[in-house]
Amino acid sequence: MTQSIRRIVLASRPSGAPTPSNFRLEEAAMPDLPDGQVLLETIYLSLDPYMRGRMSDAKSYADPIAIDDVIVGATVSRIKQSRSEDWKKGDIVLAYSGWQTHALSDGKDLRRIDPAVAPISTGLGVLGMTGFSAYAGLHNIGRPKPGETVVVAAASGAVGSVVGQIARIQGSRAVGIAGGRAKCAFVKNELGFNAAVDHRAPDFARQLAEACADGIDVYFENVGGAVWNAVLPLLNNFARIPLCGMISHYNDGAADEQSTDRLPASMKVIQQKSITVRGFMNVEFIDQQPAFLKQAAAWIADGRLKYREDIVDGLELAPAAFIGLLEGRNFGKLIIRVSGDR
Amino acid sequence: MTQSIRRIVLASRPSGAPTPSNFRLEEAAMPDLPDGQVLLETIYLSLDPYMRGRMSDAKSYADPIAIDDVIVGATVSRIKQSRSEDWKKGDIVLAYSGWQTHALSDGKDLRRIDPAVAPISTGLGVLGMTGFSAYAGLHNIGRPKPGETVVVAAASGAVGSVVGQIARIQGSRAVGIAGGRAKCAFVKNELGFNAAVDHRAPDFARQLAEACADGIDVYFENVGGAVWNAVLPLLNNFARIPLCGMISHYNDGAADEQSTDRLPASMKVIQQKSITVRGFMNVEFIDQQPAFLKQAAAWIADGRLKYREDIVDGLELAPAAFIGLLEGRNFGKLIIRVSGDR
Repeated sequence: MTQSIRRIVLASRPSGAPTPSNFRLEEAAMPDLPDGQVLLETIYLSLDPYMRGRMSDAKSYADPIAIDDVIVGATVSRIKQSRSEDWKKGDIVLAYSGWQTHALSDGKDLRRIDPAVAPISTGLGVLGMTGFSAYAGLHNIGRPKPGETVVVAAASGAVGSVVGQIARIQGSRAVGIAGGRAKCAFVKNELGFNAAVDHRAPDFARQLAEACADGIDVYFENVGGAVWNAVLPLLNNFARIPLCGMISHYNDGAADEQSTDRLPASMKVIQQKSITVRGFMNVEFIDQQPAFLKQAAAWIADGRLKYREDIVDGLELAPAAFIGLLEGRNFGKLIIRVSGDR
Repeated sequence: MTQSIRRIVLASRPSGAPTPSNFRLEEAAMPDLPDGQVLLETIYLSLDPYMRGRMSDAKSYADPIAIDDVIVGATVSRIKQSRSEDWKKGDIVLAYSGWQTHALSDGKDLRRIDPAVAPISTGLGVLGMTGFSAYAGLHNIGRPKPGETVVVAAASGAVGSVVGQIARIQGSRAVGIAGGRAKCAFVKNELGFNAAVDHRAPDFARQLAEACADGIDVYFENVGGAVWNAVLPLLNNFARIPLCGMISHYNDGAADEQSTDRLPASMKVIQQKSITVRGFMNVEFIDQQPAFLKQAAAWIADGRLKYREDIVDGLELAPAAFIGLLEGRNFGKLIIRVSGDR
């Protein structure tokens, strides 16, 4: 039986928001397994906003994906065959196979996942890079003190949900911003934030001010866009702003066409209130990952750290799911189930 | 002989750039000297951009100046009469008398100036708050390492000139930005920056890129405006941006009318390059002032730290000089000589 693999490649670069025509589903022959390597079968594929940046050819911290190459992405994979002494068939690993059903690896970039700790899909979310981004940004930049107010953008999302819960666990007030009533209810009632504010509400700025009666000490930014306008006047002296992402702008072209340049007013507030804005990527703090994994697993075990996954079945649905992610249509960490996990 | 004092008060709040009609020169009776107080005679008055903010009634870190009140400002003053045990006639002090020829003080806000260390006018500039702002921002936020590139806006000005010279003394490359050929020549030839770039040149962005062949590690911002557009693409990973002021925007109304919102693009760079933007005011670091004064006086004495003062004679010229300051027309630390210093 000749087996084939399926994969999704970059057919063309998006201009603005990606469309289905930027992606192409291909079949290819199952690769031969060289000595010293393993063949991985993808169980779960993580979809993350940063992938949008990699689809452009603009210079960034990482190289762009070449046309006709497989879209990149973290996966939870099963070792299907092993010709490596370090790995055996059936091992579950965190890998970076991208948008495809199978991949080869020399094993160096794999991390073992223990299915006894938590469902293996959490390796892509709350126990993966999104959870660690939340932890790293809060721990190293936000540094909220007990009683301080931490405002979290995209609070129902993979990063924001963890930010607010850790802030709460450590004694701060967490105020979440989310889009729509369902997400706000989840943030407040399920995740236990002190308050949740709907950025689609016509009186959003007033509601946010009410929820932050003592001002904002930490604003965890991973959205950008109009939310900033409501946050800016509420920032306290010495506020800290971990800048984790700008998802609302990932589809932008070279410049926004708005009637107002918000940069000078923003810089004036940052200057006059001695505010810190610090961009970061979790890899800067990668030496803290073991401590994070230990801590987060304990919080999950005792029920203090909750998570929500938005699992979509089938690799062929990845493009549509990804397009929806950039529009905020997912609800929880977006994951593609590529094959069964048992 | 009944003596009178002269003072300049806020006649009306400026809308945009201040005009002469916002100021009013008054005469008033010399105040009686209460027991425990001193009568100060102003020798030098410092003119600084922050005063523009105090003339507006917008909320800020400091209260606005009331209409008909004397404009605030730091002064070098002589004790003309003393009914305090702590001060004697003839002492030279750093005071905060504002735009007037005489003022009373209970002595608590005075700091003695030693005329043997340096000319007393330096208490308003290189040895005063502007010099200390440069030191504090560079020492606590910029933290340049030897060999790194430090770019300084308004490099011929009171703050920028000190930033670049300290960076050089400590082994970094200093690149100054200034307006016009005369200021650039001063920055490079007199102050000893490695390079100076004229922001009025039509190919300014190209020139700045050439002067910063290894990118920018520290950008000391005290201007804002279009210079930022040329700086942004040159910033290195982990660059630090001490945000000391935004002089080009102090005359702005509520919002700039530009066709492009530069905030999202700026935030994206800050995020992707792990950049730190930190607003500050020197008072945050006031416990470092004694160390600064000792160090800076030594650097001045051995000729490594130079300064330029732009001294204008006569209190009545303060409004015109201040209006010019906001337009970048001064060349060096702007000081009004209110009375003779001997």
